[in-house]
Amino acid sequence: MLVLSRHAGEYCRLIEAACLPDLDVVSATDPSGLPASASTCDIVFGEPSLVAKALPVLPAVRWVQATWAGVEPLLDPALRRRAGQDYILTNARGVFGALMSEYVFGYMLAHERRILEKYDAQKERRWDSRPPGTLRGKRLGLLGVGTIGAALARTAKHFGMAVRGYTRASESCDAVDEYFHSDDRAGGHGRRSLNAFAADLDYLVSVVPDTAATRALVDEQLLTALPPRAVFINPGRGSVVDEAALARALSSGRLAAAVLDVLQTEPLPADHVLWRTPNVTITSHTAALSGPADIAPLFVTNYQRFVAGGPLIYCVDVELGY
Amino acid sequence: MLVLSRHAGEYCRLIEAACLPDLDVVSATDPSGLPASASTCDIVFGEPSLVAKALPVLPAVRWVQATWAGVEPLLDPALRRRAGQDYILTNARGVFGALMSEYVFGYMLAHERRILEKYDAQKERRWDSRPPGTLRGKRLGLLGVGTIGAALARTAKHFGMAVRGYTRASESCDAVDEYFHSDDRAGGHGRRSLNAFAADLDYLVSVVPDTAATRALVDEQLLTALPPRAVFINPGRGSVVDEAALARALSSGRLAAAVLDVLQTEPLPADHVLWRTPNVTITSHTAALSGPADIAPLFVTNYQRFVAGGPLIYCVDVELGY
Repeated sequence: MLVLSRHAGEYCRLIEAACLPDLDVVSATDPSGLPASASTCDIVFGEPSLVAKALPVLPAVRWVQATWAGVEPLLDPALRRRAGQDYILTNARGVFGALMSEYVFGYMLAHERRILEKYDAQKERRWDSRPPGTLRGKRLGLLGVGTIGAALARTAKHFGMAVRGYTRASESCDAVDEYFHSDDRAGGHGRRSLNAFAADLDYLVSVVPDTAATRALVDEQLLTALPPRAVFINPGRGSVVDEAALARALSSGRLAAAVLDVLQTEPLPADHVLWRTPNVTITSHTAALSGPADIAPLFVTNYQRFVAGGPLIYCVDVELGY
Repeated sequence: MLVLSRHAGEYCRLIEAACLPDLDVVSATDPSGLPASASTCDIVFGEPSLVAKALPVLPAVRWVQATWAGVEPLLDPALRRRAGQDYILTNARGVFGALMSEYVFGYMLAHERRILEKYDAQKERRWDSRPPGTLRGKRLGLLGVGTIGAALARTAKHFGMAVRGYTRASESCDAVDEYFHSDDRAGGHGRRSLNAFAADLDYLVSVVPDTAATRALVDEQLLTALPPRAVFINPGRGSVVDEAALARALSSGRLAAAVLDVLQTEPLPADHVLWRTPNVTITSHTAALSGPADIAPLFVTNYQRFVAGGPLIYCVDVELGY
């Protein structure tokens, strides 16, 4: 097995501590420094961008476990091998839901409770008794209901919110009150379904992966379908947003606020329009920072399934891209 | 029945809408404007401070339902009548838990996620990728575990926190992992028990009522027992805090931060030391603003119990003060 990660040392320690059977581990922090024995490895555990570069010289690979949720670099068709010799790709899931919930509900509660306005009032020693809002009874729309969306839906129910989910076809989360679909075969009607989903939302949160189907999904038309009181929160993928359309919607007051953890270009360039757009909060890609201690247990679980010949969890469908 | 409240009109509309049997309602917004028939009322529903002033001219009263949680004005022994002719006092509970949860977790998440620091960084167009903290695995200590404390404990468990409760003797909430008591008979040892409760807390939240036993409970000694990383949040009663001791603890770095909704004097005077103490957030008594629509249903429920001869809910023990 090859561990290929900037945190290779920490991953190796965590994997050794798990005392897994029949496992020889070699490691590298960079694809240019692979050990000679890497060419015989049948398992690779590492960061998608590093693994993508190393794959051409890893002919024996049968399984790649990514340390991240986003596996875009590994979706390049040139990296696939012909059927029968292809490898299984699994990604990191399930560990981000709790952190994402803290992020999304931290900012939703900050909005309802006017935490920033009260902070500014306090600087002037002003007793600010304006009443706050409440999440109770408000409506959350989730673009994407995977493991993260499901965690957000459960927290929303805890706070008494109504929850809508927009998915391709799945309806697997009980905490979602109402589903809308992009896939016609699932009863969706493409754009009409998305506009119906957006109508009357108080909060829109995007947790879809970066795929051809989600690129610029949050565009002028979707933003126009939201009510002006709505707040857009994006802890998912920057590619999902038409940033120019978002800046226009916020500047013209057609949208109340946006909280953006991810952007098309990171770090956001100093002259970018979103730095000077009103009611934007930039959180600099810190929504759900996971470390080896969060991710290594996923590998351990999947390795035990791998040696037992059982199906792996969190397999990526490379056609769908997630 | 007499409705005695600044919101008497709205309360009367809500009570009439409930079509309660055998009920004649008279109302006033002030004790100086009582209708003549008030002297025959056996039920009073109103604000504690107004009801306390009117009680001497309401000899027929058998039950007082307060519109607030805090009933200090009605605890004056001079307002009690001799046994057998005394009235039942019930207060408002159960409606504040959800709002208090949004308040407390809004500020706890803001602290973990560094929302204010990131807000300041953004003003300088600074990409601030410092990692945030998480509530998961942190320890919350609740001073008081009534209906509000129980709601906070449930939300804390949702976010994966450990929960300690400090009560006189009760252990009725399952979401509390570990109890500490002030009452020796319940296994508590007074001050020793309180110090053990405070050791290693990440967050201390006070939701005890204002009674002789809770006055200045959060004093130099308790603040010293907390670790320096701890955050104190007070959405309960201002009388619980020794404000000079709190200001000293914050100024000297022995406490990380305080979020204060209630204070000894409100509005907080402009020259008060807490306006210029570091890491203090003042939220100006807005944590759980309830209105007639929240409170009237409590009266309706209790009235139905009253006419059925059943026990009322949310009875106040006037000796204990809650």
